[in-house]
Amino acid sequence: MRETLDFLLFDWLQAANLTKRERFAEHSAETFTAVLDTCERIARDKFAPFNRLADTQEPNFDGERVHLPQATHDATKAYAESGMLAAAQDYDVGGMQLPCVIEMAGNAFFSKASVAMGGYAMLTSGNASLLMAHGTPLQREVFARNEFAGRWFGTMCLSEPQAGSSLSDVATRAELDDETDPLGPRYRLKGHKMWISAGEHEITENIIHLVLAKVPGPDGKLIPGTRGISLFIVPKWLVNEQAQLTGERNDVVLAGLNHKLGYRGTTNCLLNFGERGGTIGYLVGKVGEGLRCMFHMMNEARIGVGLGAVMLGYAGYEASLEYAKQRPQGRPMTAAGKDSSSPQRPIIEHADVRRMLLAQKSYVEGGLALELYCARLVDELATGDDKTQAQALLDVLIPIAKSWPSEWCLEANSLAIQVLGGYGYTRDFPVEQYWRDQRLNMIHEGTHGIQALDLLGRKVVQQGGGSLAALAARVQLTIERAIQTDWAQQANQLAAALAQVGGATKKAWSTGQPEDALANAVPYMQAFGHTVLAWLWLDVALAVEGDSDFAHGKRAAARYFFAYELPKIGAWLDVVSRREPLCRDIKAEYL
Amino acid sequence: MRETLDFLLFDWLQAANLTKRERFAEHSAETFTAVLDTCERIARDKFAPFNRLADTQEPNFDGERVHLPQATHDATKAYAESGMLAAAQDYDVGGMQLPCVIEMAGNAFFSKASVAMGGYAMLTSGNASLLMAHGTPLQREVFARNEFAGRWFGTMCLSEPQAGSSLSDVATRAELDDETDPLGPRYRLKGHKMWISAGEHEITENIIHLVLAKVPGPDGKLIPGTRGISLFIVPKWLVNEQAQLTGERNDVVLAGLNHKLGYRGTTNCLLNFGERGGTIGYLVGKVGEGLRCMFHMMNEARIGVGLGAVMLGYAGYEASLEYAKQRPQGRPMTAAGKDSSSPQRPIIEHADVRRMLLAQKSYVEGGLALELYCARLVDELATGDDKTQAQALLDVLIPIAKSWPSEWCLEANSLAIQVLGGYGYTRDFPVEQYWRDQRLNMIHEGTHGIQALDLLGRKVVQQGGGSLAALAARVQLTIERAIQTDWAQQANQLAAALAQVGGATKKAWSTGQPEDALANAVPYMQAFGHTVLAWLWLDVALAVEGDSDFAHGKRAAARYFFAYELPKIGAWLDVVSRREPLCRDIKAEYL
Repeated sequence: MRETLDFLLFDWLQAANLTKRERFAEHSAETFTAVLDTCERIARDKFAPFNRLADTQEPNFDGERVHLPQATHDATKAYAESGMLAAAQDYDVGGMQLPCVIEMAGNAFFSKASVAMGGYAMLTSGNASLLMAHGTPLQREVFARNEFAGRWFGTMCLSEPQAGSSLSDVATRAELDDETDPLGPRYRLKGHKMWISAGEHEITENIIHLVLAKVPGPDGKLIPGTRGISLFIVPKWLVNEQAQLTGERNDVVLAGLNHKLGYRGTTNCLLNFGERGGTIGYLVGKVGEGLRCMFHMMNEARIGVGLGAVMLGYAGYEASLEYAKQRPQGRPMTAAGKDSSSPQRPIIEHADVRRMLLAQKSYVEGGLALELYCARLVDELATGDDKTQAQALLDVLIPIAKSWPSEWCLEANSLAIQVLGGYGYTRDFPVEQYWRDQRLNMIHEGTHGIQALDLLGRKVVQQGGGSLAALAARVQLTIERAIQTDWAQQANQLAAALAQVGGATKKAWSTGQPEDALANAVPYMQAFGHTVLAWLWLDVALAVEGDSDFAHGKRAAARYFFAYELPKIGAWLDVVSRREPLCRDIKAEYL
Repeated sequence: MRETLDFLLFDWLQAANLTKRERFAEHSAETFTAVLDTCERIARDKFAPFNRLADTQEPNFDGERVHLPQATHDATKAYAESGMLAAAQDYDVGGMQLPCVIEMAGNAFFSKASVAMGGYAMLTSGNASLLMAHGTPLQREVFARNEFAGRWFGTMCLSEPQAGSSLSDVATRAELDDETDPLGPRYRLKGHKMWISAGEHEITENIIHLVLAKVPGPDGKLIPGTRGISLFIVPKWLVNEQAQLTGERNDVVLAGLNHKLGYRGTTNCLLNFGERGGTIGYLVGKVGEGLRCMFHMMNEARIGVGLGAVMLGYAGYEASLEYAKQRPQGRPMTAAGKDSSSPQRPIIEHADVRRMLLAQKSYVEGGLALELYCARLVDELATGDDKTQAQALLDVLIPIAKSWPSEWCLEANSLAIQVLGGYGYTRDFPVEQYWRDQRLNMIHEGTHGIQALDLLGRKVVQQGGGSLAALAARVQLTIERAIQTDWAQQANQLAAALAQVGGATKKAWSTGQPEDALANAVPYMQAFGHTVLAWLWLDVALAVEGDSDFAHGKRAAARYFFAYELPKIGAWLDVVSRREPLCRDIKAEYL
């Protein structure tokens, strides 16, 4: 994985060029590499050996405290000590001022080693970064700084039992208590928050929840829709302006742990707020702007989920590749039949096993290229010359960055199990856990269906289709370069696919009715995603040089994607283009 | 499910017509229905309520005995008492002389209620049926009869740690001990058997293993390949000619339980034979004909696996349908936007949720049609007029019956999780278990890859392509009927698909080299399977009458399959037709 990561970062994405920018001027390719080395080492030593343990020793609640394996404490501590919690932050707040693409690349090692044990740190970093963007100076100093230091960990409290995908139905209520509290306007919260990852644990002395809640209007009623949502800091233990614990427990109570299919090493909680007089929460930003603040970090959060999905896929790919090289079983079938008296051959010699490995390779390496590309765009947005273009590209790519690996690296994990056969179905090998852990990714941080609505319902039509056009122009550049090379056939195939996607987008919206267009939003997103991946594979293939096994492997995976995967878009776009009304129209009673 | 099952059995497949045959003359539609009622009741009362328990209270070995939940004992006892173990057997051995299609339909209820708890009985029935076909009169009397009565349960011991897909590498050795033993020529066995389902338990007083082993040649060496394999009865506790336990333990020892991803309610074991002087085994059939005997029941075994896969899919479909009707979340998007102040709507009103439900419906009901159709062909093979045709059709359909639901009902189970969202990812709902249980089906009883080699490497080319032609002729009959109806468009689509499959078959084999053809055997099987399912859906749609919700539902699922699924075959057949060499040729070092 490391060789591929380095190639994508430094050869393909030219990440070292970022050091020419003022913000990253003190960095060099060497410091970037050193960060990756450190992450790789900690992930290998502190996370990977305990990934199964974190699964089998599920968090448990004794009525007072939630217990996690010691390994989770040790691993998160090592992560915090590495400084990665503040990797992208300014030097003057203790950060490393790293580009997003390097931060993401470093975090990839942890996701691969143990996505569930890595969850605590990722949430904390996201939480604190949000406070850096929207908090008051004192909120940053008290809360964000102590999170970056690893003294306290953080959460994001969005969902409620009755409000998952539909955040406009958030019913947690926040009533003003004291507008003049130095930590920010103080409110009293009451409600329930569901699916809160890292919502309770004893890893750190305090937990800083970021909570969406609604401030009632003058009539005392909650404002319908997302407009009414505000954002609050809710510490588990109350703190003073000097960031000292006051010893007073805030009124946020664990109602129960969720027991999950996978991802078991991260606690996931139902939390009750305000059952004992009202939870203290400090407003972040302005009233009614909670969702905007929360989604400030959405690009990074969705790239993070996508990258986590890729890394689970990668872990399965490597495990099944290793197994396939070692495991003798059967003999190749030839026109002369099989010679049963000859020794069995390693299963990697069977074409179908190679197909399963090559499919995985094309999914996970392609997925990695996608996530790094998007992270690189986040850097363009922050420090580049053409922020408008970066924004346009990110807008259309983020739903793909989140959804595509969630779906296809799940398939990769299933193929990894298949390569191992019966052994893959046992808990003696890691691949079944990867598959279980992976299944969450199509659900959290915006479900597959929500991503598809975002893509087809908003992103590709926004600015008169301008964002889609920006992406198409980028794809076109790759096609033009490829058409001069051995990749001309794939370039033509990609050009046709791009035209198909463009045509389907128009036809989907030709009636102007969202019901018509969006009934097939998921097949549209699948086709869009496969087209994006084909483009990235072609672009990566053009960047590959030489005659090494590594280079041949990259080319083979690119060819695989064009031969076996890209042709799938026809079936998906068929229904989009003709606005197939079957699913929209069917009566519930027929099901 | 029951309404669909009855429709497929009695309206579509005209199962009641079987009672015109001598073997089933004492039956009627009413007795068939009574059997289904009994199975449905026992499955509902004794199996379904304990399916989660069987998963969480995994079998455990205390060093002496393997413990299972009491519920598993009770459920299997109720099953045995129903007489279903001998459902298809002659009256004079205590059987019910039921057609295969009714036996399978009855067993479907148990697979749906708890596929893992149902495993013990299915294996026993298969084991004893095999002995009825190949055993001596005394072997039948002593072993099969007591298995049918539920006094003893049975297993099938094929795989070994080094011989899974490659049975020719079986290394268990059987040496002649006493040719004149009344229970059959007595051998002493030595070796290891892996993945033995129901290989150890205390449900019954004895376990009758059927074991593949090799009798050494005159030179003392094992004969390479499958020719050398023989079949043996290995009772856990030795018995006499009167079927009484002698009190002597046979030398077959549990080496360990496998701890699996799913299917946890069925014990799965590594068994050691002959570590204490040699395991006693009685030869079944002739030396060297073990595999032929074992595969005598292969059609039923593979239909059984396929039907189990369908039923797991069905269970998930019903659970997610129920949830989607109850769960309010979000509001439909219209050209006017969303009215956040209106109440949330049940998620079944969202087009994408309907898509996920309709996809599941098309997979599980289509899969049920496939399995029942194949079971009906088993009846044709046994009691019909045109056994040659039945054999030809079964030959090409069995790999599909085994593989298709294993793949697509896994997708159905994943969609069921997706419909439930975060709740589906928890163990508070049943869908995550269905998905885990299901994942085994692409692995056991011949992996996906093995099924594909069987289909493209043998079945479609056998008899000069005669078996494939027999299937094509059947499909053609449906097309001809449909072309006169509202289904003409689908009929034409199916005709084109059939031609594509036929063309791809020829092109795959046009060089005559198995390496060329078989490199893409799995994509071929996927396309073949989807074409078969489209045919069955069209045939089912033609059998549907009237204007009921039920009828509309069947038509919608058929339309869904043609609109969303059948078009997928293009991408699969592309690589088959051009004998895409990528996977065959890639070097292991490139991966």
